[in-house]
Amino acid sequence: MDRIQPRTLSGFMELLPDKQVIFENMMDKLRKSYALYGFTPLDTPLIEASEVLLAKGGGETEKQIYRFTKGDNDLSLRFDLTVPLAKYVALNYGQLTFPFRRFQIGKVYRGERAQRGRFREFYQADIDMIGDGSLDIVNEAEIPSVIYKTFTSLGLRHFVIRVNNRKILNGFYAMLGLTEKSGEIMRTVDKIDKIGPEKVRGILTGDVGVNRLDADEILRFIAIRGTNDEVLAALENYRGKNETFDLGLDELNTVTRYLSAFGVPEENFQVDLTIARGLDYYTGTVYETTMTDHPEIGSICSGGRYDDLAGYYTDKKLPGVGISIGLSRLFFVLEEQGYLNDALITAPADVLVLPMTVSLDEAITLATSLRAQGVRTQVYFEQKKFKAKMSYANKAGIPYVIFLGEDEIREGRVTVKDMRTGEQTSVSPGMAAAAIRGKLDSDAAAAPIRDRA
Amino acid sequence: MDRIQPRTLSGFMELLPDKQVIFENMMDKLRKSYALYGFTPLDTPLIEASEVLLAKGGGETEKQIYRFTKGDNDLSLRFDLTVPLAKYVALNYGQLTFPFRRFQIGKVYRGERAQRGRFREFYQADIDMIGDGSLDIVNEAEIPSVIYKTFTSLGLRHFVIRVNNRKILNGFYAMLGLTEKSGEIMRTVDKIDKIGPEKVRGILTGDVGVNRLDADEILRFIAIRGTNDEVLAALENYRGKNETFDLGLDELNTVTRYLSAFGVPEENFQVDLTIARGLDYYTGTVYETTMTDHPEIGSICSGGRYDDLAGYYTDKKLPGVGISIGLSRLFFVLEEQGYLNDALITAPADVLVLPMTVSLDEAITLATSLRAQGVRTQVYFEQKKFKAKMSYANKAGIPYVIFLGEDEIREGRVTVKDMRTGEQTSVSPGMAAAAIRGKLDSDAAAAPIRDRA
Repeated sequence: MDRIQPRTLSGFMELLPDKQVIFENMMDKLRKSYALYGFTPLDTPLIEASEVLLAKGGGETEKQIYRFTKGDNDLSLRFDLTVPLAKYVALNYGQLTFPFRRFQIGKVYRGERAQRGRFREFYQADIDMIGDGSLDIVNEAEIPSVIYKTFTSLGLRHFVIRVNNRKILNGFYAMLGLTEKSGEIMRTVDKIDKIGPEKVRGILTGDVGVNRLDADEILRFIAIRGTNDEVLAALENYRGKNETFDLGLDELNTVTRYLSAFGVPEENFQVDLTIARGLDYYTGTVYETTMTDHPEIGSICSGGRYDDLAGYYTDKKLPGVGISIGLSRLFFVLEEQGYLNDALITAPADVLVLPMTVSLDEAITLATSLRAQGVRTQVYFEQKKFKAKMSYANKAGIPYVIFLGEDEIREGRVTVKDMRTGEQTSVSPGMAAAAIRGKLDSDAAAAPIRDRA
Repeated sequence: MDRIQPRTLSGFMELLPDKQVIFENMMDKLRKSYALYGFTPLDTPLIEASEVLLAKGGGETEKQIYRFTKGDNDLSLRFDLTVPLAKYVALNYGQLTFPFRRFQIGKVYRGERAQRGRFREFYQADIDMIGDGSLDIVNEAEIPSVIYKTFTSLGLRHFVIRVNNRKILNGFYAMLGLTEKSGEIMRTVDKIDKIGPEKVRGILTGDVGVNRLDADEILRFIAIRGTNDEVLAALENYRGKNETFDLGLDELNTVTRYLSAFGVPEENFQVDLTIARGLDYYTGTVYETTMTDHPEIGSICSGGRYDDLAGYYTDKKLPGVGISIGLSRLFFVLEEQGYLNDALITAPADVLVLPMTVSLDEAITLATSLRAQGVRTQVYFEQKKFKAKMSYANKAGIPYVIFLGEDEIREGRVTVKDMRTGEQTSVSPGMAAAAIRGKLDSDAAAAPIRDRA
């Protein structure tokens, strides 16, 4: 037979079983965490009509899109989960209940240049809250709570949710009469960590054409640092000069005010005036999340408030707030940085039953009983030597093995071996599940990420 | 703004939130059921190199494939989960532990003519057990147990797992010297339920060119009916005439022998000599599953034993056995036939907290506490009239509402309203979770399918 070399496309993540179990565990934790806040799961097609998917137009994104024809249809693979959400809400507007909270975890496609840690097919995990006509600011205050709960449920401890408000930035630049240059200024200011304040000043007064006094004012403004209370107090000094600014400051105060009631510790939250994000789309609170020990990774969860989700599909005004986790990239980074919890049980089963007799009735009956009690059970059916059977359990990392030989069957007992300690105990078949489960329960609570203490 | 009409492509399933919750519940039950048997979850890309995906060649399937180019790459969307599994096992052979048991629930793509209940994008839920060189027959005996456990965990009760063995069929046709015509004969015999035995006989002796005596023998053979024991006994009459037949009968005996130990009731299992399935691929036990009350739907879970999973990628011999559920189609059929359990809670939250005060601190603190105890909680933040708030809870089907007004806060109590009974109780905030959860636990156990008693 002519053989084809099996391969997986470059830029497409495909995990070995043990890693896939951790990835599934992460998705499960995300689903549970989102559900606790009243988000409902959605699933939309991966393929949409190009006309629909590209309604908004796309610039850079459009070049990356997987677009093709099938029959007479011009089709595209989704490149994010926001456009399909906009389509879904516009299409099903009459049948949804607002405010509409949905989460979606799904694959999206971007034909980026393949490079290490960058994927062409990757999972995004999104939540959005959509209002019908209006959406209260307190929803924006709840988002850091969802982020905090989600990442702590994954086991991450050292991260900071950075929050800003676009109205504050827009209002501030309006005060200086620099509204038209605000986009360019923000893109310049964004480089401050990389190139330093002096070079930023140089670009502002040079290429951007800001006068020296305004450049000083801008650098002073974005240099505001301190505790959340200190930053908010410093911002009060600008109050009364611009309506948009004042509104943004009120919103930022509300978002910060309920943090503690929402269960978010002060150290995981930071008002940060350098956060701007998608300049055309976001209109209020914006969020980024960074790992304290790995700021170089950039934001692992970002989003913000927008005023118009689906203007290109419907005349309904649908403001909302949403955040997105680039899950495949996050997983790649966590693995690379040694954050994956190797104490997590990634074996396909909790116990392997090893029949040592010709008849398999007792082994199978035991397995059926274990499964009925929720224990993930495999029976080793292959005709192999004992050593090969044990080697299978070891290689697969199965934490318990049950031996079932003539003696055990006659005596109505089974031998349970803890593969990690080597300890063997003899119990009645009816107690085998309890013997295993008692020890597994603590393992089951383990998180997929192991952060430093 | 120029608006684009939002739409979802024909043949692509996109569910409203309440239905999506039931679909998610089904997938969750499937994952749990498969895991109980030691299957590990896998996830492979939706896009593969066409050369790899179509290595086997494809006939009918090939025309339906979504195939396109991106840059220099000739790409295709997967049309099933078996070919990607073959690629995965061949590619990662050295890092897998055999027998390798995996499940995968994922979308596949076939550009079929769009028609009601047929999808171009649909979920398949597959399990496979792959041996390295050999795979014991008892694995084939375990498959009906997985099917039984899976469908009963979904809530389905009236279904029959029909089992046959290709070696029995091949051996029988070899006895008659009709091996070369066996494919054509089986396709003809397959129509017996639709056109009756006389017409089958006519086609066999006419178009197919079987003589009258052999046609009688064939019709007698496939007419073998009765309990599993009766069918097996009738098959013993053919023993000793053909080695393949005898081997198949031994295998069928083994598969049937362990049924009870595997926890499969006799009434959910049937040896059925009319089951043949994929003629080129399957070599041993074959399975179909039909709903007793809706035989017209056809098989809802099918598969079988194959000798060579990945011959077009590797020289390793990888025999296996697997089954597949066409999940999107099954869901469509269940909905259409009224099988979806409308008692299942499909609301996005278990409880809606209604703050009746200006300050939201108490409401948010209560929500944080409820979430910490695992209760899915939403706070209604919008500035709306009381009636609009209650209408939201009703429309979203949220089973509990908690009122938190000045009086409640002063007295340190909350009022919990059961939206289904109208009953209101007053408890301390710390007891609110327990009050709700006690009643929700029984609902949480509800299955997505409601079958007749």
